[in-house]
Amino acid sequence: MWEVHSSDKIRIKDIAERSGVSVGTVDRVLHNRPNVSGKARAKVEAVLKEINYQPNMYASALAYNRKYTFCCLLPDHDRNAYWTNVEKGLQQCILNRGDFHLSLITEYYDQFEGSSFAVAAERIWDKKPDGVVIVPQNFDVTQAFCRRLQEQDIPFVFLDSNVPEIEPLAFFGQDSLKSGYFAGRIFMMQAGEHARRILLMKLMSKGRVASRQQEYREVGFREYMTTYYPDCEVVELSLQLDGEDGYESRIRAFLDEHPDVRHCITFCSRAYILGEYFQRNGLKDFHLFGYDMVERNVECLKQGTIDFLIAQHPWKQGYNSVKALFNHIVLKKAVQQCNYMPLELLTAENYIYYTADEK
Amino acid sequence: MWEVHSSDKIRIKDIAERSGVSVGTVDRVLHNRPNVSGKARAKVEAVLKEINYQPNMYASALAYNRKYTFCCLLPDHDRNAYWTNVEKGLQQCILNRGDFHLSLITEYYDQFEGSSFAVAAERIWDKKPDGVVIVPQNFDVTQAFCRRLQEQDIPFVFLDSNVPEIEPLAFFGQDSLKSGYFAGRIFMMQAGEHARRILLMKLMSKGRVASRQQEYREVGFREYMTTYYPDCEVVELSLQLDGEDGYESRIRAFLDEHPDVRHCITFCSRAYILGEYFQRNGLKDFHLFGYDMVERNVECLKQGTIDFLIAQHPWKQGYNSVKALFNHIVLKKAVQQCNYMPLELLTAENYIYYTADEK
Repeated sequence: MWEVHSSDKIRIKDIAERSGVSVGTVDRVLHNRPNVSGKARAKVEAVLKEINYQPNMYASALAYNRKYTFCCLLPDHDRNAYWTNVEKGLQQCILNRGDFHLSLITEYYDQFEGSSFAVAAERIWDKKPDGVVIVPQNFDVTQAFCRRLQEQDIPFVFLDSNVPEIEPLAFFGQDSLKSGYFAGRIFMMQAGEHARRILLMKLMSKGRVASRQQEYREVGFREYMTTYYPDCEVVELSLQLDGEDGYESRIRAFLDEHPDVRHCITFCSRAYILGEYFQRNGLKDFHLFGYDMVERNVECLKQGTIDFLIAQHPWKQGYNSVKALFNHIVLKKAVQQCNYMPLELLTAENYIYYTADEK
Repeated sequence: MWEVHSSDKIRIKDIAERSGVSVGTVDRVLHNRPNVSGKARAKVEAVLKEINYQPNMYASALAYNRKYTFCCLLPDHDRNAYWTNVEKGLQQCILNRGDFHLSLITEYYDQFEGSSFAVAAERIWDKKPDGVVIVPQNFDVTQAFCRRLQEQDIPFVFLDSNVPEIEPLAFFGQDSLKSGYFAGRIFMMQAGEHARRILLMKLMSKGRVASRQQEYREVGFREYMTTYYPDCEVVELSLQLDGEDGYESRIRAFLDEHPDVRHCITFCSRAYILGEYFQRNGLKDFHLFGYDMVERNVECLKQGTIDFLIAQHPWKQGYNSVKALFNHIVLKKAVQQCNYMPLELLTAENYIYYTADEK
């Protein structure tokens, strides 16, 4: 039998007893107040070190009663898209800290337009933020904004994709290289050793994919393929993000041209474009691997036109990003720099137990 | 752009304004105090209903300043086993509620001995617990103890395996039937259509496996096999839990007898018994699927002798079980009855992102 008590935390009284000084002296040392002899201070500090004392920064921060403005810079998006879950997490973290005066202001940018990021960043700058959550765009515009923040000692957190060279306070997102490598392993386990050709679908706009995450996932995936399936050809199908009108004929043309392709993968969150095509056309013999628990992907999982999705806790990424800013700025607590989300593999059998929206 | 504020919670002042009564009247209604006219009470209650008001039970409970004793009834286990993570979660939830006077007392029972459960339960009974977390043993002994608790209105939570007929306050664990079914799907995706015979390893003691969880996982697995692979034979290898001495020769004899078997699965947390055998004997051509992130299993994942593990957040099960008791008993909050853990599929590539010990 063992027992544990909620009072197993250390109290000022205990510190005083251990140091052989009065409670008042301990209190004066803890709050850096005068009228403590050097000897008494040394005794108390030795005990604090011994017990690894964590001061109650929460109470101190409350007493300080300051207002804090946090800002976020997110990609513009539809309702119910991947980013909506990120937003819910960001908001919930603010609402859960009702004892403090926190505000969160969100601005959006176009993922394919560097100047759009700079404009939204300018609007954030004008808010005089105490801290910022950023989904990085391309390196140059992201770095330009972050340098300004750093010059003013304004901490920022990267969400979704990391740019370690810019040295954010923290990063929350998946390890994209590993994620693509892992996707390759599961995907090829299903495709089997005899697959000669597989389809990689990319959604492009202005000649590129939406995010660094997607680029890096592909790098990881291709590394897996080169190592273990050097003879399997990866054929790309590029669709334009601008509209769904042309998808049907582009996909049909691709499949006509590659009648041996039965296994498809994508690193964007819209695997459903292929899944819904298979469904509309009654194609049952195809296997599809994608990313993210967005509504239309989930419907395809249920219908059997998507076999696997990798999910990445968008809600938690949002929640933890704000929490990192709060802990660092308000509570003066140490924050872990690199925070990889789990690589969750979801199928028709287990997706219902995955909670994208956590409480 | 949107903004959210931590003050977006409703205040008593707002309720007063909306109801057209004084703050004092709202306060008297909220605390069920006298001297409120029927008309004023009705107005306030209408507003409370409209805004779905949640009273601050935390502050009320603190003011009440009572002591609470929670107890747990867990299977006896080695250090660093699966249950160790459950215990860490149970303890952390108590330590995180340092504002309250909570104690947690844990008693252990032998999973293969009904009378051992009854003896440990008796010891818990003597502590006059306010609430109990129970890992169910067989139906009769579990029910006998729970009936006594129910007669005294002492709430209890089931952890790991559920017995819904006994009607616990809450349950935290995996959906074992679905878990076994899911395991079957991934396992056979790897084994391929041509697998004619696969090995199911069971650890037995006194003629049975350790838990209802393991039994149900097997039911789910066999359902999958019967539906999709009716011609694939499932051959059982039973090992005795009492000691590892005999394992080597039993496994060797089995494999000699079934030279075509290359795919092995187990629903207990000791897949490493087979994994370490493969490693010791330099057998590279075997595939193994198991459960739980215990140390020796993880080592086999790294070495490549286990391909897949299903993990089930033991830390979170422990934490959430105590939290459910706390919310129900201390804060008088509603608690969700059935709480399935995610079915996490882990491989050498993604296990490092799975956090068994959460903070």
